[in-house]
Amino acid sequence: MNTTFSFTSTHTDAHSNARTGVIHTPHGDIQTPAFVPVGTQCSVKSLTPQDLMDLDTHLFFVNTYHAYLRPGIAVIRQFGGLHAFMHWDRPIITDSGGFQVFSLGRVREGKMEDGKKGKLQETALAKISEDGVEFQSHWDGSKHIFTPEKSMEYQWTLGSDIHISFDDCTPYPVTHDTARASMERTHRWEERSLKKHLELQMTNYELQKRPYQALYGSIQGSVYEDLRKESAAYISALPFDGIAIGGVAVGETKAEIVSVLDWVMPLLPEHKPRHLLGVGEFDDIFALIEHGVDTFDCVQPTRLARVGVVFTRTQNANIKNQHESDELDVMKRYSIDVTKSLYAMDDQPIDPTCHCPTCAQYSRGYLHHLFHVRELSAYRLATIHNLYFMNQLVREIREAIGEDTLHIYKKRWNLS
Amino acid sequence: MNTTFSFTSTHTDAHSNARTGVIHTPHGDIQTPAFVPVGTQCSVKSLTPQDLMDLDTHLFFVNTYHAYLRPGIAVIRQFGGLHAFMHWDRPIITDSGGFQVFSLGRVREGKMEDGKKGKLQETALAKISEDGVEFQSHWDGSKHIFTPEKSMEYQWTLGSDIHISFDDCTPYPVTHDTARASMERTHRWEERSLKKHLELQMTNYELQKRPYQALYGSIQGSVYEDLRKESAAYISALPFDGIAIGGVAVGETKAEIVSVLDWVMPLLPEHKPRHLLGVGEFDDIFALIEHGVDTFDCVQPTRLARVGVVFTRTQNANIKNQHESDELDVMKRYSIDVTKSLYAMDDQPIDPTCHCPTCAQYSRGYLHHLFHVRELSAYRLATIHNLYFMNQLVREIREAIGEDTLHIYKKRWNLS
Repeated sequence: MNTTFSFTSTHTDAHSNARTGVIHTPHGDIQTPAFVPVGTQCSVKSLTPQDLMDLDTHLFFVNTYHAYLRPGIAVIRQFGGLHAFMHWDRPIITDSGGFQVFSLGRVREGKMEDGKKGKLQETALAKISEDGVEFQSHWDGSKHIFTPEKSMEYQWTLGSDIHISFDDCTPYPVTHDTARASMERTHRWEERSLKKHLELQMTNYELQKRPYQALYGSIQGSVYEDLRKESAAYISALPFDGIAIGGVAVGETKAEIVSVLDWVMPLLPEHKPRHLLGVGEFDDIFALIEHGVDTFDCVQPTRLARVGVVFTRTQNANIKNQHESDELDVMKRYSIDVTKSLYAMDDQPIDPTCHCPTCAQYSRGYLHHLFHVRELSAYRLATIHNLYFMNQLVREIREAIGEDTLHIYKKRWNLS
Repeated sequence: MNTTFSFTSTHTDAHSNARTGVIHTPHGDIQTPAFVPVGTQCSVKSLTPQDLMDLDTHLFFVNTYHAYLRPGIAVIRQFGGLHAFMHWDRPIITDSGGFQVFSLGRVREGKMEDGKKGKLQETALAKISEDGVEFQSHWDGSKHIFTPEKSMEYQWTLGSDIHISFDDCTPYPVTHDTARASMERTHRWEERSLKKHLELQMTNYELQKRPYQALYGSIQGSVYEDLRKESAAYISALPFDGIAIGGVAVGETKAEIVSVLDWVMPLLPEHKPRHLLGVGEFDDIFALIEHGVDTFDCVQPTRLARVGVVFTRTQNANIKNQHESDELDVMKRYSIDVTKSLYAMDDQPIDPTCHCPTCAQYSRGYLHHLFHVRELSAYRLATIHNLYFMNQLVREIREAIGEDTLHIYKKRWNLS
């Protein structure tokens, strides 16, 4: 077991900025690029931590906001941290809690929790000041305050291997002036985060209590080139262990997300690992990896699984008209909705080429039935498949990068 | 793989009628006595068939009524039977469908689906005639008819290893006259079941299509000694492969169930396996096994698990007053409700002496959290524990019977 945190870049693609590497943490190595599943409430929905280990997941993402509210920091402290609480011995990454705290306090266009597009209802649950954010629990209305210092303390108690500094999550859409003010506040908050984290680290070092916990700085700046570049330079200059790109996937288009990566990625130090927060839908993966992202978390594969949408490696045979299929989004081409009645009598696995535990044993017809009658095993079996699919995809991408053949491998998927 | 069905009694206890044995089926052996988990909708709730295999479950109980409605007999036919549909290669037992069909058509005192005591609402969903039972689907109100012949055909298509003949499930409470009429109808229906089953068997034998499927006769007679004895003698005289005791656990007391076993069991042929339908709560197990029951199905262990009530092998330490605890029912002494707040910070497994996959990895505190935030993995982890507990209990009982020490083993549990 390593006692410190480091990143080794093992190979950079000859044709893009994609790179392979290894993040070394006290709880083991993370092979990158890596897809990181999200365990919102200390659990990837429908799976046990053992299921994730069986799926060869290297890194587990836990939301600090949710852990703070339930089970609560006191409970996690009693257990000595998230690793012991969840019985997960591999690396964990936690966010700052900021994203959830802000989501509650602002009107925001974009994808809502249930995946529908629309305007979130205006709420007055969060109040922002220079000190931090005061908010009401979405569970019981109780009042709480998150500051950079508190976020660091909470993450320290959670004991994750990778923390993220507390930032001001800029809403979208936003004016340039508001985005600048938000970014500047972010920079002040991140310096406070860093200071507090180093204090905790030092105290801990003296007490020799815990393995090293890393801190990533987070870049903001909305969809403005000058702000994103300024933030990238600012955060890169501070002694963070890694860099997170924040404030994306808050409602902007996929093209806008790619622009942010275009601006930011070339400015980041080569020797630090880079995490993209909340982006990693199936059709984003090649773009973000080609920009040099090392790790990325996304709820899409698990959320889709729970409504019966499961990935396939072969283009969807039910799309008869090729012309039409070109216009369909990538997701529709590479997934099936197993809840549809055409799968009721289908004795094939979800994907006949897949080697996941679900495809090895159960048919589309059985899964269709389990979803139809709302048996709980449906959600788990579909989630196992989608996570296996994502892990297998990034394994193949890592191999392709290592052989400088990512551009050829990508063509197989017929992506733009 | 055996191609026929048989039962071998391996040992009878020196101090009771408890016996060990092996039921040989084309899909493998069942070590008896065996607890049989119920997969109402072709799935033991929250588990996959693979989970059941990992738990060393020998026999899987599926409700014909539910399979008939969803996914439907046509779907199961398309898959070639339940074994292929569920990817379960071990023995399966199906019921006749009668119990569910009748439950919908009669007012009945007793335990309702949600476990509460009370009077079920009167419904007019089922009409009984000499031919069979016409009923409306509890899902969509569509009309269906179950007759002895249809029940046999459905079970044949399901392809279970053990079928149960179609009986008239006598309600409770009931007058002696009504119970006699119901029992006599049961006998006529069971003769029709047997005739149809033998026809199907013969046709199948000529076509050499499927492995042997066994048929159990079912004893009725409510809580009347003369009727139960008459029914036991009648069913025992017919060429069924095994005997089921039906019409129990429909609202009568535990003492009344024991009386039924007192009357019936001595009359049953030694060489046929005996299944007790719908009885097998934790505190019933010793009594029914001591009466010579070989297999028994019960939803209690899985249903309790899903509300957070998990079994423990040590008497509940939270019951301080021994005098009080004597009056508590056995269940409360040998289980904890992990949803209670006193377990929030408890880092012990459910049962420190248990070797199940749940106890090997997860604490009461983590389970408490998962139940509290309604994470789906909670239901699976608790169900795995309770089924492991039941299987371990019957394994130990089988060993004790083999050594004529069941009476000593039983004392450990301090049961009446």
